[in-house]
Amino acid sequence: MSALYAIVLAGGSGTRFWPASRRARPKQLLPIAPGMQEPLITATVERLAKRVAPERTLIATGAHLVAATRAALPKLPESSFLGEPAARNTAACIAWVTAIALRRDPDALLMVLPSDHHIADAQGFDAALDRALRSAQDGAITTIGITPSRPDTGYGYIERGAEVSPGVHRVTRFVEKPDRTRAEAYVASGRYVWNAGMFFFRGRTMLDAVERHLPELAAGIREIERAAAAGSDAERRVTEAVFPTLPAVSIDVGVMEREDVLHVVPASFGWSDLGSWETAWELASRDADGNAAPEDALLVGSRDNLVCDLRTGDKKPRIVGVGLKGYCVIATDDAFLVIPRDRAQDVKLAVEALARSGRTDEL
Amino acid sequence: MSALYAIVLAGGSGTRFWPASRRARPKQLLPIAPGMQEPLITATVERLAKRVAPERTLIATGAHLVAATRAALPKLPESSFLGEPAARNTAACIAWVTAIALRRDPDALLMVLPSDHHIADAQGFDAALDRALRSAQDGAITTIGITPSRPDTGYGYIERGAEVSPGVHRVTRFVEKPDRTRAEAYVASGRYVWNAGMFFFRGRTMLDAVERHLPELAAGIREIERAAAAGSDAERRVTEAVFPTLPAVSIDVGVMEREDVLHVVPASFGWSDLGSWETAWELASRDADGNAAPEDALLVGSRDNLVCDLRTGDKKPRIVGVGLKGYCVIATDDAFLVIPRDRAQDVKLAVEALARSGRTDEL
Repeated sequence: MSALYAIVLAGGSGTRFWPASRRARPKQLLPIAPGMQEPLITATVERLAKRVAPERTLIATGAHLVAATRAALPKLPESSFLGEPAARNTAACIAWVTAIALRRDPDALLMVLPSDHHIADAQGFDAALDRALRSAQDGAITTIGITPSRPDTGYGYIERGAEVSPGVHRVTRFVEKPDRTRAEAYVASGRYVWNAGMFFFRGRTMLDAVERHLPELAAGIREIERAAAAGSDAERRVTEAVFPTLPAVSIDVGVMEREDVLHVVPASFGWSDLGSWETAWELASRDADGNAAPEDALLVGSRDNLVCDLRTGDKKPRIVGVGLKGYCVIATDDAFLVIPRDRAQDVKLAVEALARSGRTDEL
Repeated sequence: MSALYAIVLAGGSGTRFWPASRRARPKQLLPIAPGMQEPLITATVERLAKRVAPERTLIATGAHLVAATRAALPKLPESSFLGEPAARNTAACIAWVTAIALRRDPDALLMVLPSDHHIADAQGFDAALDRALRSAQDGAITTIGITPSRPDTGYGYIERGAEVSPGVHRVTRFVEKPDRTRAEAYVASGRYVWNAGMFFFRGRTMLDAVERHLPELAAGIREIERAAAAGSDAERRVTEAVFPTLPAVSIDVGVMEREDVLHVVPASFGWSDLGSWETAWELASRDADGNAAPEDALLVGSRDNLVCDLRTGDKKPRIVGVGLKGYCVIATDDAFLVIPRDRAQDVKLAVEALARSGRTDEL
């Protein structure tokens, strides 16, 4: 097998876990899943550690997040951290990092993994990874698709076709987030899986696909590679000049939806993209009343709540809920959020209100 | 008219405004009514200041609360503060303070007022006071009864009979907290008013009534008075010995329900006993969405909430509510309470839980 590289996508800056997640401290840098002791990205890299050497684990993140991200991954060398000069979506990021891996190892086999997802069943994940990597080694860009547990309209779906080897299917098509009716039909058909944003490929295969579908992006990457051959100063200068001009398109839309031969490994391993505080409650271990709360919180006559206490320091006011049903109560050092679980997506309304009133230090 | 004394009852130690109210800082020492700048007891005494001299304003409180109570009433002399050696309910307290007033002025006219109620219409209150004091001066123990605005089952009711002078009625009977059906009948009849715990009487009249209905209490008070004649050391010693043995009964049950001739002045002056956080919301000035909240709280898509921020210090985490409807959110330096308004009475469940787990410092 070729030398294996991991590209961990850590550019996220979502607002769905505000006030825990912030511009300068996005979700992947937090131990957001209940019971976690370490940030999501740390767990992501640990899951890969036994098959990917530290120097081949490449973390793509925003330039402004490199320092905080390094702090979460002390076992990786400085060369693992690649700060994008500008956010240009996933196609540019993946093509850029793939080219860097190929520079180090022309036969590199790569996997792209989001940094901020939760995986409950590490063994199941490993088994799916084995299949996906074998398929990628054999030449096809391969993805892992999650067997859907409900007709969720928040995910893209992948339709699978014939099985080409044990547990590996041809992809019939990629579809973006469907409406409810279509999502229900997809799930009922048994042929669709969720797109979890995990991709496996030989480096050369990916850059060839980028060349076919996104020639402008491929040209930009070539320009950076030429500069890199002239030395790291030139590389840095050209990257900073070229990167912001690259087409900003997702790898799904820019490459996957246009590529003819793709493989998918359907799998279930307790995957969650941790889309909101509601998801955090779903994943949490809960008491007999359905509450997930730290020991020092006091819930009386309350059911099905998530209390998440991310405060530091010694003197933390005790969180007390009486008669609370189905709420999220989130405490950080500078905010205290109360929101019904079934409105967890509306955290963004609070973030928008703070932005409108110029409270940028709280975003 | 005789010299007028006020007895302000400030022994309360309720839990209904937890976490704002505490054992060592009961409700009357807090500016609990929204918009208030001063504690309830300070407002109570200020309302009386133009008719009762400071040295005749007597504050009956628990011995452990004297220092905090004095701090809230800096205009009163030290002699105004009477610390009960033990809590023996209102009959003992009122008889004891009445005897002290009579010692200073044998013809004293007295009024007893709770320290922790809210009165919106100070002029209406003054007019009722005038009538009640005239009636008391003429010899009858007199009370002010609040015209009920709803069939509340949390108050005692007073049935009024014939009008004996303008705005003053005979009392037919005192009734304790009724059930819902009876409360509705009382309100429908138009003959009942709420017992607001305000009493007006000549000192001698009250002690005679205590003698008739609670002879054991009268005997205890006489023993204290005899000791007082021998000097303040003897008074202190005997008070501390006798007070804890006095019958613990309310003035309503011990005297009012048994006394034949009582007068009542029906009145409405925006009275509230501030029974819970729900009442605080009702009294608060609210915005167009029905929210009563400090400016630095952020409420989005939220209606009819009370946010009460009693925290000190500079760095206070921002309180943010999204999709909150009908909640109380109360922040102090050591607790953060979230409770539906319609369960506000259940704050006591949290207090009980803290007591059970030995968190006495938080009570």
